[in-house]
Amino acid sequence: MPHIDLHNHTPGIRGLLQFRPETGRPVMELVEVLLRGPSTLSRGERELIAANVSSRNQCRFCAWSHAAFAAAQLPGGMELVEQVRDDLDGAPVPAKLAALLRVAEKVRRDGREVTAADVAEARAAGASDLEIHDAVLIAAVFCMLNRYVDGLAAVTPDDPEAYAKMAERIVARGYLTG
Amino acid sequence: MPHIDLHNHTPGIRGLLQFRPETGRPVMELVEVLLRGPSTLSRGERELIAANVSSRNQCRFCAWSHAAFAAAQLPGGMELVEQVRDDLDGAPVPAKLAALLRVAEKVRRDGREVTAADVAEARAAGASDLEIHDAVLIAAVFCMLNRYVDGLAAVTPDDPEAYAKMAERIVARGYLTG
Repeated sequence: MPHIDLHNHTPGIRGLLQFRPETGRPVMELVEVLLRGPSTLSRGERELIAANVSSRNQCRFCAWSHAAFAAAQLPGGMELVEQVRDDLDGAPVPAKLAALLRVAEKVRRDGREVTAADVAEARAAGASDLEIHDAVLIAAVFCMLNRYVDGLAAVTPDDPEAYAKMAERIVARGYLTG
Repeated sequence: MPHIDLHNHTPGIRGLLQFRPETGRPVMELVEVLLRGPSTLSRGERELIAANVSSRNQCRFCAWSHAAFAAAQLPGGMELVEQVRDDLDGAPVPAKLAALLRVAEKVRRDGREVTAADVAEARAAGASDLEIHDAVLIAAVFCMLNRYVDGLAAVTPDDPEAYAKMAERIVARGYLTG
């Protein structure tokens, strides 16, 4: 049960966004442009960064939902999402994406951990400045969303089917529809 | 020097927001509504929560700038900001604000640390559900902003005068003006 009365029974972050639409609207606009807007990183790759940060932060709702969103939009599906989660260095992802996932993990722990050498490694693997920027911001945004969801104890469904249904909606319509 | 070429020399987070206005706009809209929009928490109180989270996260740019913004809008000024930073339990702040600062500190570490008892304590001290929500979200938002600024090594001025000038602008015009 959430820590405050949300005046709705919508699970996860959507219940929080509906409670306070003045803050909910810019939060969702930020997530939409970052995870689904025009980018040289695919939507699946960006969701994978979001899922991985959320998993390391142990935010169940965000980890399960963005794992489902990544799996639905990556050729490797849930198997790849789980490989990356369990062993990034051994997972079959391109060097550029692996380098961005490593930068994101450092941002998750503490932005000050990111070194010029980390960024140089991502660049050597083909990452552009914009891709590096977006990987850092995705990690930072999920450090916010994970804390928002868990800090208010948002409702977290236990049924995997609930996340599969959310994935269908997000893949088809994005984050800005109700 | 920032990790990526921002194509501008604007210090702090503004340099990042100018680099990528598609994400910069919703970030600043969120900060404006949360820290300066209509609320039963004063602008100074909200900036104090932001400053305290940033200080604990050791993000120099955010800690110094939001300390200046809080000091400029609180009757207790910088002395109070520093008292809260150094010893929250001994600082002369109202019980409600102290309880919200304690909730924010738990959110900063990990949202899962916030307990029903913490929320009940804030409520007993007079906090509304909306105030509890906003304290949680302010803490979460600064966990994002701190990581964004430090993860990209944004320019951090050493001159205290730079932060005093930012405070003048923010107090007078808010976050949405250039």
